[in-house]
Amino acid sequence: MSRHRRYRSAEKTLGTSPGTLTYVGAEIEHATKIKRIEFNATDYRIDDSSRLSACRLPGLETPYINWIDVDGIHEPKVVAALGQQYHLHPLLLEDVLNTEQKPKIDIYDEPTPPIGNGNGAVQPTAPVVYVTLKMLHHSRQRQEIDVEHISLVLGKNYLLSFQEERTKDIFEPVIERIKASSGKTRRNGADYLLYALMDVIVDHYFLITERIGDKMDELEEQIVQERATQQTLAILYKLKRELAFIRRTVYPVRDIINTLLREESDVIQHNTLPYLRDLADHTNQVIETLESYRELISGLMDVYYSIVSNRMNSVMKTLTIFSAIFMPLTFIVGVYGMNFKYIPELETRYGYFVVWGVMALVTVGMIVYFRRRGWL
Amino acid sequence: MSRHRRYRSAEKTLGTSPGTLTYVGAEIEHATKIKRIEFNATDYRIDDSSRLSACRLPGLETPYINWIDVDGIHEPKVVAALGQQYHLHPLLLEDVLNTEQKPKIDIYDEPTPPIGNGNGAVQPTAPVVYVTLKMLHHSRQRQEIDVEHISLVLGKNYLLSFQEERTKDIFEPVIERIKASSGKTRRNGADYLLYALMDVIVDHYFLITERIGDKMDELEEQIVQERATQQTLAILYKLKRELAFIRRTVYPVRDIINTLLREESDVIQHNTLPYLRDLADHTNQVIETLESYRELISGLMDVYYSIVSNRMNSVMKTLTIFSAIFMPLTFIVGVYGMNFKYIPELETRYGYFVVWGVMALVTVGMIVYFRRRGWL
Amino acid sequence: MSRHRRYRSAEKTLGTSPGTLTYVGAEIEHATKIKRIEFNATDYRIDDSSRLSACRLPGLETPYINWIDVDGIHEPKVVAALGQQYHLHPLLLEDVLNTEQKPKIDIYDEPTPPIGNGNGAVQPTAPVVYVTLKMLHHSRQRQEIDVEHISLVLGKNYLLSFQEERTKDIFEPVIERIKASSGKTRRNGADYLLYALMDVIVDHYFLITERIGDKMDELEEQIVQERATQQTLAILYKLKRELAFIRRTVYPVRDIINTLLREESDVIQHNTLPYLRDLADHTNQVIETLESYRELISGLMDVYYSIVSNRMNSVMKTLTIFSAIFMPLTFIVGVYGMNFKYIPELETRYGYFVVWGVMALVTVGMIVYFRRRGWL
Amino acid sequence: MSRHRRYRSAEKTLGTSPGTLTYVGAEIEHATKIKRIEFNATDYRIDDSSRLSACRLPGLETPYINWIDVDGIHEPKVVAALGQQYHLHPLLLEDVLNTEQKPKIDIYDEPTPPIGNGNGAVQPTAPVVYVTLKMLHHSRQRQEIDVEHISLVLGKNYLLSFQEERTKDIFEPVIERIKASSGKTRRNGADYLLYALMDVIVDHYFLITERIGDKMDELEEQIVQERATQQTLAILYKLKRELAFIRRTVYPVRDIINTLLREESDVIQHNTLPYLRDLADHTNQVIETLESYRELISGLMDVYYSIVSNRMNSVMKTLTIFSAIFMPLTFIVGVYGMNFKYIPELETRYGYFVVWGVMALVTVGMIVYFRRRGWL
Amino acid sequence: MSRHRRYRSAEKTLGTSPGTLTYVGAEIEHATKIKRIEFNATDYRIDDSSRLSACRLPGLETPYINWIDVDGIHEPKVVAALGQQYHLHPLLLEDVLNTEQKPKIDIYDEPTPPIGNGNGAVQPTAPVVYVTLKMLHHSRQRQEIDVEHISLVLGKNYLLSFQEERTKDIFEPVIERIKASSGKTRRNGADYLLYALMDVIVDHYFLITERIGDKMDELEEQIVQERATQQTLAILYKLKRELAFIRRTVYPVRDIINTLLREESDVIQHNTLPYLRDLADHTNQVIETLESYRELISGLMDVYYSIVSNRMNSVMKTLTIFSAIFMPLTFIVGVYGMNFKYIPELETRYGYFVVWGVMALVTVGMIVYFRRRGWL
Repeated sequence: MSRHRRYRSAEKTLGTSPGTLTYVGAEIEHATKIKRIEFNATDYRIDDSSRLSACRLPGLETPYINWIDVDGIHEPKVVAALGQQYHLHPLLLEDVLNTEQKPKIDIYDEPTPPIGNGNGAVQPTAPVVYVTLKMLHHSRQRQEIDVEHISLVLGKNYLLSFQEERTKDIFEPVIERIKASSGKTRRNGADYLLYALMDVIVDHYFLITERIGDKMDELEEQIVQERATQQTLAILYKLKRELAFIRRTVYPVRDIINTLLREESDVIQHNTLPYLRDLADHTNQVIETLESYRELISGLMDVYYSIVSNRMNSVMKTLTIFSAIFMPLTFIVGVYGMNFKYIPELETRYGYFVVWGVMALVTVGMIVYFRRRGWL
Repeated sequence: MSRHRRYRSAEKTLGTSPGTLTYVGAEIEHATKIKRIEFNATDYRIDDSSRLSACRLPGLETPYINWIDVDGIHEPKVVAALGQQYHLHPLLLEDVLNTEQKPKIDIYDEPTPPIGNGNGAVQPTAPVVYVTLKMLHHSRQRQEIDVEHISLVLGKNYLLSFQEERTKDIFEPVIERIKASSGKTRRNGADYLLYALMDVIVDHYFLITERIGDKMDELEEQIVQERATQQTLAILYKLKRELAFIRRTVYPVRDIINTLLREESDVIQHNTLPYLRDLADHTNQVIETLESYRELISGLMDVYYSIVSNRMNSVMKTLTIFSAIFMPLTFIVGVYGMNFKYIPELETRYGYFVVWGVMALVTVGMIVYFRRRGWL
Repeated sequence: MSRHRRYRSAEKTLGTSPGTLTYVGAEIEHATKIKRIEFNATDYRIDDSSRLSACRLPGLETPYINWIDVDGIHEPKVVAALGQQYHLHPLLLEDVLNTEQKPKIDIYDEPTPPIGNGNGAVQPTAPVVYVTLKMLHHSRQRQEIDVEHISLVLGKNYLLSFQEERTKDIFEPVIERIKASSGKTRRNGADYLLYALMDVIVDHYFLITERIGDKMDELEEQIVQERATQQTLAILYKLKRELAFIRRTVYPVRDIINTLLREESDVIQHNTLPYLRDLADHTNQVIETLESYRELISGLMDVYYSIVSNRMNSVMKTLTIFSAIFMPLTFIVGVYGMNFKYIPELETRYGYFVVWGVMALVTVGMIVYFRRRGWL
Repeated sequence: MSRHRRYRSAEKTLGTSPGTLTYVGAEIEHATKIKRIEFNATDYRIDDSSRLSACRLPGLETPYINWIDVDGIHEPKVVAALGQQYHLHPLLLEDVLNTEQKPKIDIYDEPTPPIGNGNGAVQPTAPVVYVTLKMLHHSRQRQEIDVEHISLVLGKNYLLSFQEERTKDIFEPVIERIKASSGKTRRNGADYLLYALMDVIVDHYFLITERIGDKMDELEEQIVQERATQQTLAILYKLKRELAFIRRTVYPVRDIINTLLREESDVIQHNTLPYLRDLADHTNQVIETLESYRELISGLMDVYYSIVSNRMNSVMKTLTIFSAIFMPLTFIVGVYGMNFKYIPELETRYGYFVVWGVMALVTVGMIVYFRRRGWL
Repeated sequence: MSRHRRYRSAEKTLGTSPGTLTYVGAEIEHATKIKRIEFNATDYRIDDSSRLSACRLPGLETPYINWIDVDGIHEPKVVAALGQQYHLHPLLLEDVLNTEQKPKIDIYDEPTPPIGNGNGAVQPTAPVVYVTLKMLHHSRQRQEIDVEHISLVLGKNYLLSFQEERTKDIFEPVIERIKASSGKTRRNGADYLLYALMDVIVDHYFLITERIGDKMDELEEQIVQERATQQTLAILYKLKRELAFIRRTVYPVRDIINTLLREESDVIQHNTLPYLRDLADHTNQVIETLESYRELISGLMDVYYSIVSNRMNSVMKTLTIFSAIFMPLTFIVGVYGMNFKYIPELETRYGYFVVWGVMALVTVGMIVYFRRRGWL
């Protein structure tokens, strides 16, 4: 959860000049892997040699769509080099390297004048769309949600994707589709590719919400059938935290897509729009499901509290019934335990049995009384 | 409820190319039924042979309004064929087949360039309005709300309606009206037909909310008259879930109609507008009723909790009164049960009766005390 | 309350063609009364013969303002006839007849092409403003709020008002003002008349909120002075329901007036605007008062709950104090009730009195202890 | 509080024609005082003779700013006369006289055609800004907030101010400033004067919120240090009501100033704008402080409830500990109080002392047990 | 906290003319320190002599960026003098001196005509951007958040920064960067400098939120592991207050930056925009984190309450179990403590042991019963 993924970015970067490239995230040992995929409707080439030199800003007239898929962002040097080759703004690169960055979209819409980065070099920047998202996996061993920081940079005819080196390359299915046939992905531009990658991520949101839905069903059954223990509430609380976390991750995606939809003419082609709208619709469905879960949780808590308070009621009733029956009886037997010289009842032959009778009457009376009040 | 209708769409479609046609929904055994209804102010023809070949995109000059009413969406093949004949976008068809799709409107407003679907074929798409809604029935045997996924596709002079094969054809009354006379439905265009079908669905929302209103009245009576049991809260919770579900189903309908109202010039004729506005107004009434029920439920829960806590209070008072009366008495009789050699009271002739008198005084005193405090 | 005024409109109208005229409301036996009032700055004529034939769409050049005041909407025939004479849209007439219709404004802003109504006739409709509101009375015998469905139709130089035949004609004061002098009402157009009638209705909202304010003051006094009984909460709940109902009735009035304000040029003359703004301001005051009552109620509930829980606390303390004092005493006397052969204390001369002393000490100790803890 | 200042305006004005002048407010015996102040950068004249005749609409070419300060609005005649001399709209005068009127701004932006008031006279109205606000004082003797209804009417080169005759003239400091020197107030127009008067009122809002802040600090200390009594909650509730009341009074001021800011060109001169923006900023600070107090109160209530429930817990623990210790002991001594013929323990020499030992062990065991559970 | 920093500004300034310069804040003894920093891409000069005379409005053609860094705002004279030299509006200076001023932005966008300040002098004002923010430090000794009032005034080629003399100069790192190299800060204009100073402040917000996050983790662990004491809630309450305070401090920063972004053409150069957008993004992340903490706190309180109520339940169960076991036993032994002449059981040889058997049975029965109910 977010708690375990705080990397003290504030302390690290306090006082440094803005745009300084520092990696903020978990330590990773593997080297960064870089795949270069070039394709068009008729042809495709894949170079997974991880050579940086092969990744250069393609000319505007290139017949190929250029996709650089970077797996691992823990080497600022690599990201900086790519940034220089693709003329990216230092602030963009800073966000690529910061795994604490929240999902957002930035459009660097016209070539800005040369700005120096931290080490004094000068980089002209080009018009690009920068999208950063979070990939969510369910980690089985830790029973938690794993978060992966994804950055996508869309240019005229190229796309750069950056992912934390966490599990496997999550964009593998898209590469497979490019290899497999000259389908939609191959016949469309870099903007459709951007859509396809975002679609992979949003599809995983559905998986995560379904898993949470399962847990909710389980809890609901537990609570409604009154098998809830004190731990149930702690689980509900954890679920609530998870929901809040996913919500914070998914909500901005809607804004990102809406911004893309408004940017149509510039970077997004007209026939990609229906796909983006479809993606927006999917995101909305995830959000709506999350909202309905949130409501359910608060409803379940109400039920839980009411069960707890009903149990208390039932405990108190039990106590009261016992007390109300045995206190008078104990009093009665106490009376005839007194040592007064003259207690006439004690002398009678059947006194003892009469007392038993009286006590039986008292008991029956009490039971009738409590049954009338609906306590028994 | 929504819980019972989760078909793991996420797992099914994960990694497939967008626009791949997969049916997501309950298994159904009947074959798909297709009715073709052609009509104008003077004439009508109905063909319920379920032949796909009869369903073709009508020419722009046709003197008839063309209505294809498809009953059953569990055969992707059939839907795909219709989609091809009417030049529908693959994403539209994907939504027709997905019973988990939330209500929405999509306008495919200009002919998009040819896009291949999953199997490589090319389909030109035409300007159409796509509306998807949920039909709500009250299922008597399962005491639950039954949801049916409805899709409506409006073109220049045709309308396609898709419904899950669940009960009977819900659009039967409209077909009856077309048969019966040359009324408004016959004299107007396909847009009025779209309105008429949506009107049927919204009318059913009223029925459902009335049924929920009845349940609420029952519960309110139970709670206010303090006949509520612990189960009452579980029923309230279930009702709350149902309300939330209906709300999520009805809310988007308002947006759908507002979008249609804004689309006037293109697909909706001017004299259909008052009808759509009337429909929007009906939807608002349903929504408002749902909101007022939601408020009522939370008010009822407050009353319920207060009754529970008052009961607890009353249990505790009973216990306290019993204890406060019998504890002193038991103590007193205990005193004279002691075996001290010299206890002067024990020797007196009427000691026993004096003790009884004292105990009566204590009891009366306690009763007076509790009456003063308002506990008796 | 709204609960008692549900007339199963959904079941009645399910499946009928839109625009079919059906009365939805309480059964009424009196015949519909129709008053025709014609007036201008210098002259006025009132015809209360209830003859339908006298009510016709006035020519555009008429020197009079034409007001048809219909008292009773339970005869669809009468309303339909009026609708035909004034060329009203069938959907408008449907709303006039439906007492469950929520407050709203509809503007039928240009002559729509002929549309058939349910029975095949053709009615041309004219540009009119349709406003529907709820009149609220406090019914003394039923201690409830009585709701009356009011419809106002504003044309070029005429106004139609429809009211449920419930009590007396609520617009009587306006008629009196027309009779009395050639004041503002006489010198202005039909739009000012519309304002005057709406003003009558909004004035009654003030009356109702003042009455609720009185009830609130009473309850507040009860609760704050801790004289609240369990019934208090039920009354609070009922009040909350009433408030919610009035809110739902008054809120839309604001939107209605704002729409009228925006329609200035067309149907509302410029010098009526200050009056409408004044009316909007009054409506806002009612709404604000209602909101402040809602807040007060939730504050009162908090106080109530806290009093209940304080009472519980006090009950428990009493119990604990009794137990803590008498349990040790009972134990002590029990000790000397044992029948051991050798209990040295029993043999002493003043053992009995020493035990009394010890018990007095224990009691005093307990009392001091509880006083220190602030329980006594 | 607002409760004590309800003057049944609804019943008074029900059925009267709109614009009828009726005073709604507390009864006041003093006569209305009228001050006329004329000033410009070089000169000033003050006439406090209360003569109405001296108050006339100044010519557009007058070299003076004209300020009429009316102290007392309980004489409709006086207000009506002033209204006639300054050509004010009857609805404006109605609002001046109604102390229940909520704060608002009205702009009568162009000369409306002659409209008759209630008594048949005709008044031409001129373009004016009407602002009504509430002055808040802290009344020491009643320990309540005193509300004073203030109306300000801004014309081309004059300003009319109306205040309830409650305490002293609240605008005295501004008059003093005019007398004192030719500062900003003297060198600027009537719009700056409007600002200066509103500034006086908003400054008093700060005083009131500071006083409430003090009360809150006191309560917080009481609650957090657990010295809260049952009355504390009643005080919190009263504070909450006061806050809600002030909020309703202050919120509209923001809208009023924003409307003034938008009206720049017409009635507000350009160099008054920074002052108005400053005033808006002050109002926002008051509002924000009120909001933070509201949050604090609900936080305090949570703490209070938790303390109450912790106390209950502690009461219950005490009871349980006493019971758990003495019940077993009482049982044990009861055992040896039995009169069976053959109870071997009774015959032993040290039986009595052994029993004491056992009882000591039980007691110690119980104490250890409760200490382990954290109850002692 | 805000409570300790209320300086009765309302009472101080009541009745004074707007724009009067009064210092509102903590008493400070040090003299005001003034640094003048002049720089451009190739050169820089720093004058920290605190001489006011050196600080003059630079000519429009100056080749340097002029930064006056004022440390200490408790000397109104100094601020007034600076204000005069830089032609600042008196209202701006008033805000600089008021440490209670909430964060805001004001744009004095065109030269206003001469306006006198309180002491009669005349100051022409120039187009400037005024930004006021709060610096937040964590004060270790007082375990509280320290607030410092910061004012930034941006002109054509100069920037004035005012800070309370609280700790050290918080803008030291920026001065260091200016000294260190001709990086971004040196090569850009005064607007970039404004950004750099605001960035320093926002970076400290991250520090503060991380510290609060640590406290929250600690509390969460305490509560979830049920080690919470009564004090826990008081700490939660304090945390909530702190969060609310920070929220009120950080929220307006977002609006300030958005206003700056909209002001691009005038005062902010185009290539500063990405930096401001980045800053806006950082601010949003702080806000989002604060919101998520707020949710967490309310979740934790729910868990805490549930634990408290579970504890109560467990206390009550213990009591009930003890009572239910020992009350019957005490009754039984009481029976055989009676002194009736004829109690047959007393005479039997093994009566005593049989009673022990019966009591064992009762005890076992009770234990089985409570185990079945899940209480043991």
